[in-house]
Amino acid sequence: MSLEINPDLVRDFDHIWHPCTQHKDHQVTPPILVEKAQGIYLYDREGNRYMDVIASWWVNLFGHNHPRLNMAITRQLEKMSHVMFAGITHQPAIDLADTLVSLTPTGLDKVFFSDNGSTAVEVALKMSLQYWQQQGQPQKTRFAYLKGGYHGETLGALSVCGLEIFRTKFEKVLSDQLPVDGPDCFRCPYGLQRQSCNAECFEPMEKALSENSNTVSGVIIEPLVQGAAGMMMYPPVYLKKLQSTCESLGIHIIFDEIAVAFGRTGSLFVCGEHDLKPTFLCLSKGITSGYLPLSATLTSDEIYSAFYGEHSERNLFIHSHSYSANPLACAVANESLSMLTESNFLESLKPKIAAIKECGRQFDGITGEFRQTGMIAALELVENNKERYSFEKRVGYRIYLEGLKRGLFIRPLGDVVYFIPPLVITEEEIEVMLNTAHVCINAVLK
Amino acid sequence: MSLEINPDLVRDFDHIWHPCTQHKDHQVTPPILVEKAQGIYLYDREGNRYMDVIASWWVNLFGHNHPRLNMAITRQLEKMSHVMFAGITHQPAIDLADTLVSLTPTGLDKVFFSDNGSTAVEVALKMSLQYWQQQGQPQKTRFAYLKGGYHGETLGALSVCGLEIFRTKFEKVLSDQLPVDGPDCFRCPYGLQRQSCNAECFEPMEKALSENSNTVSGVIIEPLVQGAAGMMMYPPVYLKKLQSTCESLGIHIIFDEIAVAFGRTGSLFVCGEHDLKPTFLCLSKGITSGYLPLSATLTSDEIYSAFYGEHSERNLFIHSHSYSANPLACAVANESLSMLTESNFLESLKPKIAAIKECGRQFDGITGEFRQTGMIAALELVENNKERYSFEKRVGYRIYLEGLKRGLFIRPLGDVVYFIPPLVITEEEIEVMLNTAHVCINAVLK
Repeated sequence: MSLEINPDLVRDFDHIWHPCTQHKDHQVTPPILVEKAQGIYLYDREGNRYMDVIASWWVNLFGHNHPRLNMAITRQLEKMSHVMFAGITHQPAIDLADTLVSLTPTGLDKVFFSDNGSTAVEVALKMSLQYWQQQGQPQKTRFAYLKGGYHGETLGALSVCGLEIFRTKFEKVLSDQLPVDGPDCFRCPYGLQRQSCNAECFEPMEKALSENSNTVSGVIIEPLVQGAAGMMMYPPVYLKKLQSTCESLGIHIIFDEIAVAFGRTGSLFVCGEHDLKPTFLCLSKGITSGYLPLSATLTSDEIYSAFYGEHSERNLFIHSHSYSANPLACAVANESLSMLTESNFLESLKPKIAAIKECGRQFDGITGEFRQTGMIAALELVENNKERYSFEKRVGYRIYLEGLKRGLFIRPLGDVVYFIPPLVITEEEIEVMLNTAHVCINAVLK
Repeated sequence: MSLEINPDLVRDFDHIWHPCTQHKDHQVTPPILVEKAQGIYLYDREGNRYMDVIASWWVNLFGHNHPRLNMAITRQLEKMSHVMFAGITHQPAIDLADTLVSLTPTGLDKVFFSDNGSTAVEVALKMSLQYWQQQGQPQKTRFAYLKGGYHGETLGALSVCGLEIFRTKFEKVLSDQLPVDGPDCFRCPYGLQRQSCNAECFEPMEKALSENSNTVSGVIIEPLVQGAAGMMMYPPVYLKKLQSTCESLGIHIIFDEIAVAFGRTGSLFVCGEHDLKPTFLCLSKGITSGYLPLSATLTSDEIYSAFYGEHSERNLFIHSHSYSANPLACAVANESLSMLTESNFLESLKPKIAAIKECGRQFDGITGEFRQTGMIAALELVENNKERYSFEKRVGYRIYLEGLKRGLFIRPLGDVVYFIPPLVITEEEIEVMLNTAHVCINAVLK
């Protein structure tokens, strides 16, 4: 639809600054004016249908407009939409905290609520720093992070982001942290395979932590899948090594499971699935199944106890957001967690995961790598010798445009075409999704 | 209610880490377990009623459980709760952006949505920095801020916060910015009155900006009321001087109206009321009338145009949150803005503002200052000679406890007892609120 014929798109163009968007592109291809959403589909005003292949930025689990999730909001709406969360508590938050603690590994005992993934990360960073101060180790002020890591874009979260594209304009106001070479399985410098290696690539992290253990407060990492880096996937053995090293050196581990939790990898939490015990666990995105902004930072009673004491000690954690633990968001999160944990829901993902694997074989002939972790799949497109296409070619963007023509809302990260559908996608729809994507890719590459 | 007899409070104590709370206090005084909220009142499970004197952290405008606001959410829920905001747009966001632009001063043309006040500020800081880089002035990397300023607690927002209590544990990861002595009318070093002065206290800001204009990107300020500092109120002439200085020196002005917009001061926006033209305007809190987390950063077409261009220039603004422009939040914001702008609603605040003033006279005999800006009032309690009570005395906290006994939910900032009620409070309720607070204060001070 062109800008000329739709006055609402003109108003969008006149007044809205969209995130991560070069608005000049909208002159040629305006944003889709989505009017309603149902299941895994988005509908524009003309009734055109788009499959929400990336679950609206990796948030939606059960599809749009789900009667049970809608009802959870409606029911809470009748009691109260919001109330402040200092000096006050409420049932939806108590239930949610209790459930999160019961579903995550032993040792994650306390839940701190905030509004989005960035703030969940900022909370973890700040708690870690303050903890060490209150334990008489104020020199522990730095965080190690992976050069492929992404943890949000507020300046604290951005200071532990390894991706140049997010950092480059803001370097001068980012604090000095410790970047470390992380796993890069597609281009493994050790010439190994992620299915069979022993995370030899943990070496730089081991070295960085050993040499800096006195000043490092914690390590932050996206477990198994480095999302914004282009769905870079690596094996759990890396995380086992990380845990063992951090435990022996007295360094906190912050797991950023914002993108991977709540069924994406086939399990509720990566830490639970692989018997890992992070010091902090950051959750957001799927926590409300894509309905409302909400995040949580979980940590141990040991961390919490360092902040517990007399008023006069001034050891409390001073961090707040007005809408912390918003009851409407907690209510829908509670319902979503019920749905995730009942009736063998996670079991029902197994044939879907198999379907993605099976259907992904069609990309064998394409130069690049098709990779998969549970319900997350990605196809990295490259030139020969695993070289990236030049930025100017906009291969990923052109595939996105082909997708729009064919009813697929994909949004490649650079030239990595990825798939994070709502978990309720069917096997038939998985086939349509991957087959159609293949057609789009061919249309651009051939 | 004691912890022992309520299992839900035990679960709260076991699993929830509340914001800005020393949990040891909960051993004596557990949080109120709020079950429902109606109008300006909160109700616990036993039916005890508390007046929400601070509008649930300054967010609620029209009272809790308002039929029109509830309906706005229910209606949107039937269409779609959420969809990503890159490559996609939707009616609730378009309407909200359009309305915000039309209600704010000329020159605020574009709206960038995020989730909370901190992120609204981070967005403004990042846009300002990147703008100067793209204008060939990359040396402009610092922000001036007031020593009494508060703008949120993510690390970027915290780097421009002047209040020690929020910063002290995190100094080592805060970027170096430019703190400036700001207005302190209660303890005016010039011996002047805020009603009649000419903002002589602008001198340090003028000096700081003049001496650093080459490296200063922008100034961030809470207009008229420095909230977290203890509702420090100062006259608009300070802002006029700031605008004139910034314009002549080529420095951005960031107005943080998160706490003061949407009727709190008696007008929709401070900038509009006083004919001021900030480069960036940050909004949150009352934007959804206390229903859902949402924020907006407004700026000019001139700023926007520095980010507009060819893909290959890499000038786009890279910042995103998954739930940017959440349709449910936008829908309730649209309804709230309708209510704020119709039927002479703002006019209806005038007798209430007068009632606060009138009723505030009862504090004349108390050592301290009663001050008011529109619907915001505060009573700063001090020893003789305007000296603060010692931290250990917990005067404010004890008044809070007295309030709980009398059905008033107040939460003093240090020893500043303040009042930011929902705008729908009646004149009779204002009297009850201030009279009861007086009783609580006397109970502690006498």
